[in-house]
Amino acid sequence: MFFASDNGGPAAPEVIKAIAQANEGAAMPYGADPIMDNVREEIRDIFEAPGAEVFLVATGTAANALSLACLIEPWQTVYCHKNAHIEEDECGAPEFYTGGAKLTLLEGADAKIDPENLRHAIKHTAHAGVHNVQKGALSLTNATEAGAVYTPEEVKTLTGIAKAAGIPSHMDGARFTNALVRLGCSPAELTWKAGIDVLSFGGTKNGLLGVEAVVLFAPEYAWEFELRRKRGGHLFSKHRFLSAQMEAYLSDDLWLGLAAKANRAADRLAKGILQIAGAQLMHPVEANAVFASWPRKGHRAAQQAGAKYYHWPFDQPLEGPEDEHISARLVCNWATTDAEIDNFLRLIS
Amino acid sequence: MFFASDNGGPAAPEVIKAIAQANEGAAMPYGADPIMDNVREEIRDIFEAPGAEVFLVATGTAANALSLACLIEPWQTVYCHKNAHIEEDECGAPEFYTGGAKLTLLEGADAKIDPENLRHAIKHTAHAGVHNVQKGALSLTNATEAGAVYTPEEVKTLTGIAKAAGIPSHMDGARFTNALVRLGCSPAELTWKAGIDVLSFGGTKNGLLGVEAVVLFAPEYAWEFELRRKRGGHLFSKHRFLSAQMEAYLSDDLWLGLAAKANRAADRLAKGILQIAGAQLMHPVEANAVFASWPRKGHRAAQQAGAKYYHWPFDQPLEGPEDEHISARLVCNWATTDAEIDNFLRLIS
Amino acid sequence: MFFASDNGGPAAPEVIKAIAQANEGAAMPYGADPIMDNVREEIRDIFEAPGAEVFLVATGTAANALSLACLIEPWQTVYCHKNAHIEEDECGAPEFYTGGAKLTLLEGADAKIDPENLRHAIKHTAHAGVHNVQKGALSLTNATEAGAVYTPEEVKTLTGIAKAAGIPSHMDGARFTNALVRLGCSPAELTWKAGIDVLSFGGTKNGLLGVEAVVLFAPEYAWEFELRRKRGGHLFSKHRFLSAQMEAYLSDDLWLGLAAKANRAADRLAKGILQIAGAQLMHPVEANAVFASWPRKGHRAAQQAGAKYYHWPFDQPLEGPEDEHISARLVCNWATTDAEIDNFLRLIS
Amino acid sequence: MFFASDNGGPAAPEVIKAIAQANEGAAMPYGADPIMDNVREEIRDIFEAPGAEVFLVATGTAANALSLACLIEPWQTVYCHKNAHIEEDECGAPEFYTGGAKLTLLEGADAKIDPENLRHAIKHTAHAGVHNVQKGALSLTNATEAGAVYTPEEVKTLTGIAKAAGIPSHMDGARFTNALVRLGCSPAELTWKAGIDVLSFGGTKNGLLGVEAVVLFAPEYAWEFELRRKRGGHLFSKHRFLSAQMEAYLSDDLWLGLAAKANRAADRLAKGILQIAGAQLMHPVEANAVFASWPRKGHRAAQQAGAKYYHWPFDQPLEGPEDEHISARLVCNWATTDAEIDNFLRLIS
Repeated sequence: MFFASDNGGPAAPEVIKAIAQANEGAAMPYGADPIMDNVREEIRDIFEAPGAEVFLVATGTAANALSLACLIEPWQTVYCHKNAHIEEDECGAPEFYTGGAKLTLLEGADAKIDPENLRHAIKHTAHAGVHNVQKGALSLTNATEAGAVYTPEEVKTLTGIAKAAGIPSHMDGARFTNALVRLGCSPAELTWKAGIDVLSFGGTKNGLLGVEAVVLFAPEYAWEFELRRKRGGHLFSKHRFLSAQMEAYLSDDLWLGLAAKANRAADRLAKGILQIAGAQLMHPVEANAVFASWPRKGHRAAQQAGAKYYHWPFDQPLEGPEDEHISARLVCNWATTDAEIDNFLRLIS
Repeated sequence: MFFASDNGGPAAPEVIKAIAQANEGAAMPYGADPIMDNVREEIRDIFEAPGAEVFLVATGTAANALSLACLIEPWQTVYCHKNAHIEEDECGAPEFYTGGAKLTLLEGADAKIDPENLRHAIKHTAHAGVHNVQKGALSLTNATEAGAVYTPEEVKTLTGIAKAAGIPSHMDGARFTNALVRLGCSPAELTWKAGIDVLSFGGTKNGLLGVEAVVLFAPEYAWEFELRRKRGGHLFSKHRFLSAQMEAYLSDDLWLGLAAKANRAADRLAKGILQIAGAQLMHPVEANAVFASWPRKGHRAAQQAGAKYYHWPFDQPLEGPEDEHISARLVCNWATTDAEIDNFLRLIS
Repeated sequence: MFFASDNGGPAAPEVIKAIAQANEGAAMPYGADPIMDNVREEIRDIFEAPGAEVFLVATGTAANALSLACLIEPWQTVYCHKNAHIEEDECGAPEFYTGGAKLTLLEGADAKIDPENLRHAIKHTAHAGVHNVQKGALSLTNATEAGAVYTPEEVKTLTGIAKAAGIPSHMDGARFTNALVRLGCSPAELTWKAGIDVLSFGGTKNGLLGVEAVVLFAPEYAWEFELRRKRGGHLFSKHRFLSAQMEAYLSDDLWLGLAAKANRAADRLAKGILQIAGAQLMHPVEANAVFASWPRKGHRAAQQAGAKYYHWPFDQPLEGPEDEHISARLVCNWATTDAEIDNFLRLIS
Repeated sequence: MFFASDNGGPAAPEVIKAIAQANEGAAMPYGADPIMDNVREEIRDIFEAPGAEVFLVATGTAANALSLACLIEPWQTVYCHKNAHIEEDECGAPEFYTGGAKLTLLEGADAKIDPENLRHAIKHTAHAGVHNVQKGALSLTNATEAGAVYTPEEVKTLTGIAKAAGIPSHMDGARFTNALVRLGCSPAELTWKAGIDVLSFGGTKNGLLGVEAVVLFAPEYAWEFELRRKRGGHLFSKHRFLSAQMEAYLSDDLWLGLAAKANRAADRLAKGILQIAGAQLMHPVEANAVFASWPRKGHRAAQQAGAKYYHWPFDQPLEGPEDEHISARLVCNWATTDAEIDNFLRLIS
């Protein structure tokens, strides 16, 4: 019963196998391995973007911070949701990699940026003179930190506001595939066709050991990205082991299947929770996370039985009236089983 | 016939196996996995340093740059050899992570810092006032970029000069184990007993997929290191896969055996090269690298047959008089075979 | 009729004279001039802080950014009001000097931080783990950007919350003297006795050409401050010309008299504006600035006659219905005359 | 007898007067003052560069560091002489402002970069891959730190090597006017006609209180420069007091006259020293500094009489054999009198 985060789940067996297979003899280091050539071509195919540049790193924070550093100058700001991972969970990595840029925090339900909010914030900065931090880039997260999903149209609305102001758009896609399979659209429709210039295309939360692809639909940032990646210590010498993971991930639609499993698990979990009298969802379940509240006694029972997940917000004590509700975040991963879910539901009901 | 770098070699099968074994069920992320607890204890045991703090990262550049950033302030300088990896091969990562510190470049044969040079440079900085960059830390590489090895006594001499000036010492140990097995001393003797405060303890070049341990013999830097690691994007969510590699590496003396193999390969290669009339070693062979020169015709034959290695310096053309010597760097790894070496020797002779 | 900013006003004649007098023969550079010794002692006396360290810089942005850089680490945050100068008007100088720290923006009437807001924000950060930016320092501005003043008790309440969380407090005192003369308390009561560790003690807006003193009541930051000042290019070689300005400023209570004049001008201006039917103050007039609204026709008349000031917010067009109100910021300086004010009042009425 | 540095000298009376005259009524802040318009035009005229952009800052370190930050990226290097001010006397300001770039240190007599050295260093970097710091810009100092002067032809040779490599050239002209009047060429010939893209045009060492103009012959850096200046805390609110200094400096050839005086003083001093038996010049006297050695007894006599100057290198004790030579740096400024020089000469002879 592990719902603490999708990054606590295992890697897919196909990925482990691919690593073992890649471990044959010598290979040129630092991304010059032939598997990386396949990965690059495969990603270009999948995204219908023959001119895109593709680079691998091992963490989502690296993917995001390096991407943003390429898109903006130190005296600019990144417009993002106030709950964005780049704001809340990266210990200032964007500020570090950009050389001290700002993040302008926006409101919006379900951790989705409200377009009016974005428009207002950009307008405010648009009049910036030399005393003020300048407009830099838009960054949105899909699926969001609240488990919601932007549709291609919603993405296009936001990037359109950014483009009208002359600034580029980044998508933090740590859970991109979860959003994609939920929406049933094409990868191109959800990214460059909707105005995204750079995508952090996550793998780690969806069955890899630790690989994220940065997809530069705007390839002019490529050489700068390479230098920043090296300078940040994120260029792997034995790069073939990153390539091999990503190659396996993209083969036979493995990536799509893994995300679909995680999403289905979340659906089953949400459906079960809603059977509990008074239980409520705090956000729509559109990816692989469930944000819900139910009575304290259910939490106690589950946690005594070893279930792992976070109270959300965290400062709701386990001690207190039995029937008072505690809200929680539950994240499923590709390996979450029906049995695990059903067992959990039994405990909390 | 791959001698381009030890980072082109494969991972040890035991390490691949350990990764597969670690892939069971869920695990707490970000270093809270139980395997990391074992790794920490094992490293403390091996180094006879029960108070040391241990952290894992995936690249040597990250290990070095994060370590140095903890040791110095932005307005200080790192004393290092002019051929040090931190100066020549990290695209300015130390400058980036330290917030713009300097590297003071020192001379010395075989890429070993000459103590007089260090003493002189520190003395120069010792009189620094507010206009000048201040003394910060010593960084030495063992084994060196020229394949030579510092003895414990030599390390102690250098760190003693640093300590007398009140500054800490870092060891870039990307090839620490190669040095260790050559010297036959204990890990403690080569590090903290010789005055080292922080060690980048390499694994990637010696049979791992991509793991380096940072060993803080001065544990007061621990929390800062953790924050810098996260902020740099170097904290792995699925950390167990780093832990598992390091655990396997340290089990049953695997690490020592792998380095011993690589060193023996270098010895065999050097011995063979010296059979060629006029061939010369440019540096003593004390770890797993051979720096040697032999006639151009031998280079041509080897490279036509597919041998991979670097001319050193790189700008010696393959075209030219047959008997003129070209100098080269040849690096062996744990998987370099006798057959590969003998085949190469046949071609160049 | 210049109310655009107090930094548009002239320097006090006494200050110009002091510069001319300091221009005799040679003087040791970089702060080793004897006038600086006097300034240091005088500031220690005025603030009843014999152990304080004192440094001069030429701009308020430098004073603030250098101070904050000494107080916090790159992975920490500064709690400040959302309208603070360090957030809105320094083009990211704090982020630059701190190496990429954050500013956590707080609410509060009249640009004064609401204690509950501070408490809440610190509590939020108090649970920060390695993924999160850490609590760093409090920065408050007195007088505030809205022309209001914190009393010593109010300062103490805020710094008390900071101290309880283990973090230091900075005061941006670009208009410190305006606040001081309004309150009638002692400099010590408004600073270190109220928990302030570092003060940017402004002079430029109050009659100097360009000098701010940084007063370190916590002298342990002194050497770091000196290095950061030099490294930031803010250490003056012909430092005596900064010292001379500050010495004249502090002589014969010149500083207090200048601020008192500016405050009185603001009072007269506010009183006059309130005579206009429907005119309103947006903030209390507690220093030398007036934030008020009155009908558009009055704005037109004044601006046609050459009056300089800003609509606040700026995006209120001069075209439109005559009787609609436009709100504005009017800042007085020590040289603002009664005639200038009365003339302005005649025009807008 | 003050020869410690030219920055210890007074400001020219004309400059003090101009400051007093500028102190009339209100003026728009931050460089929007009308005097700055005059300064801009005057500098464009003097340099025959109608398209140049001109900005004022108060220190040479700010002028240099801001200029270099505009010219290069954080992962690039600045080629400069190993004794350059940017390397030796700015506490790492270039590293700070550039976000962690390197300085590549070059040799050459009299602190002038040897063209072969530059060619070699650039060639080395030209082969840089992603692992290496990239070529960035050339920076040369005229007059040099050793009191020597580059001719326009020498400047052109160096900038030509830079241009061939595709990188821009910066001139640190803290003592530009001293070089100019010595050479008798035009300002244009010594700068943009000789390939200089950005000039730090010094005033502080030559009679101002503290003003340096940054002249961007490549005006495309202008907006970035303005933002970096503000962000660095170097944009003055009461900017008219910088403008007024520079306006006076450029009026009636004041700048040229002041530098000519300082140069003549150095000539007189050098000539006198060479009368002493065994005295020697260590560098040619081409600007306003004299580097010379003479017997210890002369040093003792001068210093006992209160003469101020530096032993060069500094670690030559005043105690020791009477006839042993000590070498020293003596810098003249516009206010150095013949009497002062003759008195000094009498003492050391």
